[in-house]
Amino acid sequence: MPVRALGVCYYPEHWPEEMWAEDARRMAETGIGFVRIGEFAWSRLEPRRGAYTFDWLERAIETLGRAGLKVVLGTPTATPPKWLVDEMPDMLPVGEDGRVRGFGSRRHYDFSHEGYRAECARIVEALARRFGEHPSVAAWQTDNEYACHLTALSYSEAALKGFRDWLGRKYQSPDALNRAWGNVFWSMEYASFEEIELPNVALTEPAPAHVMDFRRYSSEAIVSFNRLQADIIHRFSPERDVIHNFMGRTLSFDHFDLGADLDVSSWDSYPLGFLDQWAHREPGFKAAFARAGDPDLQALHHDLYRATSNGRWWIMEQQPGPVNWAPHNPVPRDGMVRLWTWEAFAHGAEVVSYFRWRQAPFAQEQMHAGLLRPDSQPAPGHAEAAAVAREIAGLDLPMPGRADVAILFDYPSAWAWTTQPQGKEFDYFRLVVECYNALRRLGLSVDFLDAKSADPSPYRLVLAPGLFAWPEHLRAALAGLGGIALVGPRSGSRTPDFAIPAALPPELPAPLDALKVTRVETLPPNLTVPMDGRPGAFRIWREMLEVEDAHVLLRSRDGEPTLAGAGSLRYLAGWPDEALAFDLLKSLAEEVGLATLDLPPGLRLRRAGGLAYVFNYGGETVRLSEHGLTGRFRLGGDDLAPSGVAILEG
Amino acid sequence: MPVRALGVCYYPEHWPEEMWAEDARRMAETGIGFVRIGEFAWSRLEPRRGAYTFDWLERAIETLGRAGLKVVLGTPTATPPKWLVDEMPDMLPVGEDGRVRGFGSRRHYDFSHEGYRAECARIVEALARRFGEHPSVAAWQTDNEYACHLTALSYSEAALKGFRDWLGRKYQSPDALNRAWGNVFWSMEYASFEEIELPNVALTEPAPAHVMDFRRYSSEAIVSFNRLQADIIHRFSPERDVIHNFMGRTLSFDHFDLGADLDVSSWDSYPLGFLDQWAHREPGFKAAFARAGDPDLQALHHDLYRATSNGRWWIMEQQPGPVNWAPHNPVPRDGMVRLWTWEAFAHGAEVVSYFRWRQAPFAQEQMHAGLLRPDSQPAPGHAEAAAVAREIAGLDLPMPGRADVAILFDYPSAWAWTTQPQGKEFDYFRLVVECYNALRRLGLSVDFLDAKSADPSPYRLVLAPGLFAWPEHLRAALAGLGGIALVGPRSGSRTPDFAIPAALPPELPAPLDALKVTRVETLPPNLTVPMDGRPGAFRIWREMLEVEDAHVLLRSRDGEPTLAGAGSLRYLAGWPDEALAFDLLKSLAEEVGLATLDLPPGLRLRRAGGLAYVFNYGGETVRLSEHGLTGRFRLGGDDLAPSGVAILEG
Amino acid sequence: MPVRALGVCYYPEHWPEEMWAEDARRMAETGIGFVRIGEFAWSRLEPRRGAYTFDWLERAIETLGRAGLKVVLGTPTATPPKWLVDEMPDMLPVGEDGRVRGFGSRRHYDFSHEGYRAECARIVEALARRFGEHPSVAAWQTDNEYACHLTALSYSEAALKGFRDWLGRKYQSPDALNRAWGNVFWSMEYASFEEIELPNVALTEPAPAHVMDFRRYSSEAIVSFNRLQADIIHRFSPERDVIHNFMGRTLSFDHFDLGADLDVSSWDSYPLGFLDQWAHREPGFKAAFARAGDPDLQALHHDLYRATSNGRWWIMEQQPGPVNWAPHNPVPRDGMVRLWTWEAFAHGAEVVSYFRWRQAPFAQEQMHAGLLRPDSQPAPGHAEAAAVAREIAGLDLPMPGRADVAILFDYPSAWAWTTQPQGKEFDYFRLVVECYNALRRLGLSVDFLDAKSADPSPYRLVLAPGLFAWPEHLRAALAGLGGIALVGPRSGSRTPDFAIPAALPPELPAPLDALKVTRVETLPPNLTVPMDGRPGAFRIWREMLEVEDAHVLLRSRDGEPTLAGAGSLRYLAGWPDEALAFDLLKSLAEEVGLATLDLPPGLRLRRAGGLAYVFNYGGETVRLSEHGLTGRFRLGGDDLAPSGVAILEG
Repeated sequence: MPVRALGVCYYPEHWPEEMWAEDARRMAETGIGFVRIGEFAWSRLEPRRGAYTFDWLERAIETLGRAGLKVVLGTPTATPPKWLVDEMPDMLPVGEDGRVRGFGSRRHYDFSHEGYRAECARIVEALARRFGEHPSVAAWQTDNEYACHLTALSYSEAALKGFRDWLGRKYQSPDALNRAWGNVFWSMEYASFEEIELPNVALTEPAPAHVMDFRRYSSEAIVSFNRLQADIIHRFSPERDVIHNFMGRTLSFDHFDLGADLDVSSWDSYPLGFLDQWAHREPGFKAAFARAGDPDLQALHHDLYRATSNGRWWIMEQQPGPVNWAPHNPVPRDGMVRLWTWEAFAHGAEVVSYFRWRQAPFAQEQMHAGLLRPDSQPAPGHAEAAAVAREIAGLDLPMPGRADVAILFDYPSAWAWTTQPQGKEFDYFRLVVECYNALRRLGLSVDFLDAKSADPSPYRLVLAPGLFAWPEHLRAALAGLGGIALVGPRSGSRTPDFAIPAALPPELPAPLDALKVTRVETLPPNLTVPMDGRPGAFRIWREMLEVEDAHVLLRSRDGEPTLAGAGSLRYLAGWPDEALAFDLLKSLAEEVGLATLDLPPGLRLRRAGGLAYVFNYGGETVRLSEHGLTGRFRLGGDDLAPSGVAILEG
Repeated sequence: MPVRALGVCYYPEHWPEEMWAEDARRMAETGIGFVRIGEFAWSRLEPRRGAYTFDWLERAIETLGRAGLKVVLGTPTATPPKWLVDEMPDMLPVGEDGRVRGFGSRRHYDFSHEGYRAECARIVEALARRFGEHPSVAAWQTDNEYACHLTALSYSEAALKGFRDWLGRKYQSPDALNRAWGNVFWSMEYASFEEIELPNVALTEPAPAHVMDFRRYSSEAIVSFNRLQADIIHRFSPERDVIHNFMGRTLSFDHFDLGADLDVSSWDSYPLGFLDQWAHREPGFKAAFARAGDPDLQALHHDLYRATSNGRWWIMEQQPGPVNWAPHNPVPRDGMVRLWTWEAFAHGAEVVSYFRWRQAPFAQEQMHAGLLRPDSQPAPGHAEAAAVAREIAGLDLPMPGRADVAILFDYPSAWAWTTQPQGKEFDYFRLVVECYNALRRLGLSVDFLDAKSADPSPYRLVLAPGLFAWPEHLRAALAGLGGIALVGPRSGSRTPDFAIPAALPPELPAPLDALKVTRVETLPPNLTVPMDGRPGAFRIWREMLEVEDAHVLLRSRDGEPTLAGAGSLRYLAGWPDEALAFDLLKSLAEEVGLATLDLPPGLRLRRAGGLAYVFNYGGETVRLSEHGLTGRFRLGGDDLAPSGVAILEG
Repeated sequence: MPVRALGVCYYPEHWPEEMWAEDARRMAETGIGFVRIGEFAWSRLEPRRGAYTFDWLERAIETLGRAGLKVVLGTPTATPPKWLVDEMPDMLPVGEDGRVRGFGSRRHYDFSHEGYRAECARIVEALARRFGEHPSVAAWQTDNEYACHLTALSYSEAALKGFRDWLGRKYQSPDALNRAWGNVFWSMEYASFEEIELPNVALTEPAPAHVMDFRRYSSEAIVSFNRLQADIIHRFSPERDVIHNFMGRTLSFDHFDLGADLDVSSWDSYPLGFLDQWAHREPGFKAAFARAGDPDLQALHHDLYRATSNGRWWIMEQQPGPVNWAPHNPVPRDGMVRLWTWEAFAHGAEVVSYFRWRQAPFAQEQMHAGLLRPDSQPAPGHAEAAAVAREIAGLDLPMPGRADVAILFDYPSAWAWTTQPQGKEFDYFRLVVECYNALRRLGLSVDFLDAKSADPSPYRLVLAPGLFAWPEHLRAALAGLGGIALVGPRSGSRTPDFAIPAALPPELPAPLDALKVTRVETLPPNLTVPMDGRPGAFRIWREMLEVEDAHVLLRSRDGEPTLAGAGSLRYLAGWPDEALAFDLLKSLAEEVGLATLDLPPGLRLRRAGGLAYVFNYGGETVRLSEHGLTGRFRLGGDDLAPSGVAILEG
């Protein structure tokens, strides 16, 4: 029976030491198994250079351990103390506007700064030597939420130096770089790598290949920053998992690359804030789900991050009540904390850890709920967590196997289309989300695959929307699928050097190798391209195809091919609206023999390990059998109340 | 019979000296008694360091005096001349973005700069020695509109030094500061005061207590800057009033603290610009009142600023026609200049002074109307001013006594909720305005009280919305009221150190001492919390209460307590919409025996000194007796035309 | 028969030399006569200081020449190479925010920098000496799109020095400047020109005359920058035309002043981007014309720029398909490339040159269509260009003579009302566009005249909306018109020193010399001023007039005069909405004997040289005879399909 456990985030340094033992006792009583601590505590671990004060942390670990709790120990590198910043002020990051971002909150460091990296190695090694083999230390968290607060890209001297070195290694000669970037275009040619600037100073847009390389460089800087810590921990803390806690919708570094150095991926799930702040939903939808969260976005992140670390993943921070940072912060509907927790388990989480044990009455996050109120009384989320603890104790929950549908995901594509969107609504992540929405409405379960390395061959249906440039292996792999690959829009439209392929995109393999995108357009809000004889339309993005008539599967009402296909390949020449995405994916699913449903907006399903997990995000009770969901109930029953969770066999 | 007079703002330096005597004669003929001069004239008073050229000012004062006019002499410190700025360029303020704000308009100085303070003391003393006992000088104005153009907060070196010193005096030790600010939270701990930065450099929000202390420091800097001038004037110009002209809706310094050093408060009233620029009203309302102004905002400021200086107050600048600075600048409806003037007298103004005598044909404010056109012909406002002059001459107008209702107002609360709004619509001033709107619709007259020092005991109904932290005396005072105190939402929700009270807010006195706010939520625009069995709903902000059932007076439809009460205390657990605010305050008023009306949106009433002043902001004639307004008319009659003013006895 | 030819923009440096000859052959085959080259090639013409590498350019010119093509040679000064920028980094421009704008795109230079001017003179002279008399070089283009990317105003040290010198020459003494700017207003007086700052540092708005002089200085800097190049070219390349390519809606320098140094004006016409980005049209209108462009904006620019260079003008860059830079970039409807080309010829273009020959697959503009696709196959625009080439070959197309209606246009007015709009919707260009829209709906053809120098006397109807200050000659000229002049709103409302005239505006000549604007107002979006007894209303802007009753031709429903007139003069006291503009201009046209139509929104007409050119921007076929358009067809016929062009005699 796989690990299924609850955790919580705890800050012993925030509370009198007298409270620790009682807190630990109550955590254990609640059914919590893991406690994350320490990740912002540098000023308490080393108040002056070299003056390590680790004893309190040891006492905290032991207090927790005595209650039977396992500790996840955070490295404190997201919050360098003031004395360190004052020693090397050029470690501070610089914004796109050229202003130095300083001390006073968190994440005030530059990933490129060699001096700060050395300091991080020093403190991490000191911690790992002291606690690496402590029996209560089960795992480590590196830093905290890399790239949060827009920190992936820094425009500092350190970044400039690092970027120039990186370009030198990549291109070897300025001429090679000039050719790759197309610098002849506006006399942007460089005679030496020392002439190159960061892409935040030009009067209008810089060369897109310039920006793209800076994005790659910056992503690699984060990956190597993390690897430095992971290597030290692995050396001094054998058999412990190294984890990082990703944030939602953070696209500014390649999570697959970073995940390769982790034992376990994790992420910080705040459903209500995510819906309010960045879900692309109509105002009415947002109001209807304001207390529940977007019905698909948590699941999407579960599936995406599961793919970054060989399937092992946690929720490191689970919203336990209202939070403090979104434009509006409503109270979750009763039951939603339980639902969110269960949904993570359905998608294969080993641990769901709540942020945080007790609401802090001071500092920036004092309005962020915990499982306990500031006065140590249980907050409403506490009982829901305890209920899940009881429920998972009695159930055998196999990990999910391979899903039927795969979406190829690619962080560089997000960078590319941010650099050159061509239409202001074109957003890579939104395109992926809307594909995912349609699959979820169909009741299908999804795996995400890293486009640059994944093998899609086991999947019956594979989606490859919006891929910037083809990884070499991938075209062949898609051509040879047993199932069907739906490619496009915009996939394969660039070379890795951010140029249009010489023979025009999308450069599909045979039998669609002759298909060409001859021009594209972006559509203003009131302009769509309706399909001919089928529901739905293109919006936002549309391509004109040159394609053999025999391969045309669908046309627009204005007579242009919109879907082409042959063999295992399908090419979609535009951004589908909801009706088109649903209709098209339903057809393809049926073509490959996948059974589909048509679930209402608030009802969502995840199949895993022979079980069907059903979640009611909506505000009304739903009768599951009316939606094609029947079987023996392990949890819940046919009438699923708002915030309800059901588990069916089969 | 109290002083009731008109004034005008005049700039002799803008006009040929030959025009002064005729201008003075016409002012007197218009019925004007007071003339403010000199407040931007530093470059004419001291064109080079030490070269005082005060003679022209003396001639101007004497010319005015000969016409029977009294002079309000402005200190010119809002416009330091270029030679002074070039001598000490670090006197310039710095914006939140780190850019120095320079010469070329006005207010280009830093309140923290010791060198500039010394220069201000020098020029003020020179003026006060020369003119302090001049028989035509009746009063002084210090500087001009402190904090206008967002100048309350400067992020300069001078401010940094001043702030560190202030923190040192307040906290004595860095450890005490670290504890107060909760700096352990993200390793933000300081080892010395010299390590502390201004709160405009961090990557994400700084500690709220850090911001709050900077707001307190900055407010005190303005207060002490003004006190420096007031003390000099009081020394050299005995028996003259020291006045400052506040701006509307300026919350960035504590006007009560500053007012303590004034003999008379005044403010600059521009009804049409205020409505267009910052009133929270629907577009239809704004269009309907575009030529009249918000029917409540002038009155609110009259009542608020009256409280800052022991009841003595003026309008220093009254809009006399279209202005130049709002997004749109319509012409006032005929009669509105008279109405605004009368409304100020109704609320107790001693003097209403128009800005300005003659429209300037040059420089920044050339599109700002005066009582005269640039060609010296009367503008439409001139006749309205003259009409008021005739009317007040014939009437005995007692000053207003205590109103029946009090609102506790608190500038630090505005700073606190700007720092940590929790929901983007949460705005302290708007909350107060909407309470005031409801009281005005009920026909009630209002006093504002300084929350940190006021004694609410004489009032039958006291409102305390949105108070950041309890002043110690206030809880006891509210508990002991003869009338009723309506507290909340959000009142008392923080300690002075910007932390959640240990036993949870709101820490009411007995008999509601057990009531606790256990969690709060902010609501997106389409989500409200309707009341159960009563009109209206919460919007924007809502709290969950732990309270004895016996104290619950009202619940929401979802079953949560929304109003609790016992004895003289009521606690409101959310932001009331218009319907709820009206219904609730009507009930409370009736409970304490206050008679209420239900006035239409454009009809407004102020009772003072046994008289009822009625104002028609609306576009249609209103029959007053149909709205419960009857009595003997001192001015006007039962049918009140648009822009009309009536005064009834009783 | 006048020149009527097609051209294309070509970048030999972007393509292997082996492709040049075939490209040239195909251009000629398409019917193209002119090829613009070289304008961004500095890094290829001088890769290191002094190392001229002009041979490739000579080979390109000769290759094109051998195919019968004429070359327009661009000076490369819009893209200084990196080595030059690194030699003199203070040549970089500075934004209003104080940040240096750097290398990495284009236009990274300061017009005021003397060192960079010398470098431009050097490279232009070297090119002109080498190629000035080459038989295939027919013309030159100076630089590229002056002021694009907001580069007209730079806030650099070089600009500050240049501005101070310019002010010294203009005013001779600081006192004269102080008087002209009204610096007494807020003690803004200067004792020396060295004290003056650029107008981007003040806390609130600087003196409007300060801004106005900086705008004048900056415009003159651009004009003299261009003149430097034009003079060199004229010296070394006799009998060749010097051309510059203006951008649409660029108001930041005086195109009339710059045009005086050109032989031919040209502009870059991108109809779809202009509609999406800055046309003031309702969303429904924008969607309906998203694939056609605004039906009036191209024509307006044709008429405007034709006036800047004695009637000789080109389109240097014509949109040939979807572009890359607007918020949305749809595909033009079939036929629109032909329509746009024909419309330019109708308005008198000598050459219409497409941008560009082949779509570049790399760098910033890789999503910008060409006549060829990146794979060298023809894009859809290619066939439309070829069709026009065939059509113009067979037709005699006289140049347009004088139109019946003139609009006085004035760049300084755009600067003035940007500096002091008084209402946020007041936009000078929009006011002109809306007058032009009404004239076009009436089927009238329009000439633009430079307000500061033009002679309006030959025109039957002259419009003078929104003129900042009266050029001395103009008032007399308007008074003596044979036809009618419609003046206002806001015309003549300032002296050249940005002051209100002493006797109040508009200072019209007799018989309206007594008319005065006594006050003005700006109207919020929901407030209009309907006319009494006529259609339409004022919006945005409205003036109150003092005028003899006998001169009042129209009043508002609230009784104020809105149109006054006597003799040849009419004065309009507000911003007319569409209905009022149409009704008023129709009346005036009829009064002077001009026949009018009432064309539907998509149907547009231009009369020129005895021909009537008709264009169908709309999506439906139109029967011309139903709209009063009949005659012998030279091109097209009575039923005009979408995107159709017809030419009628008479």
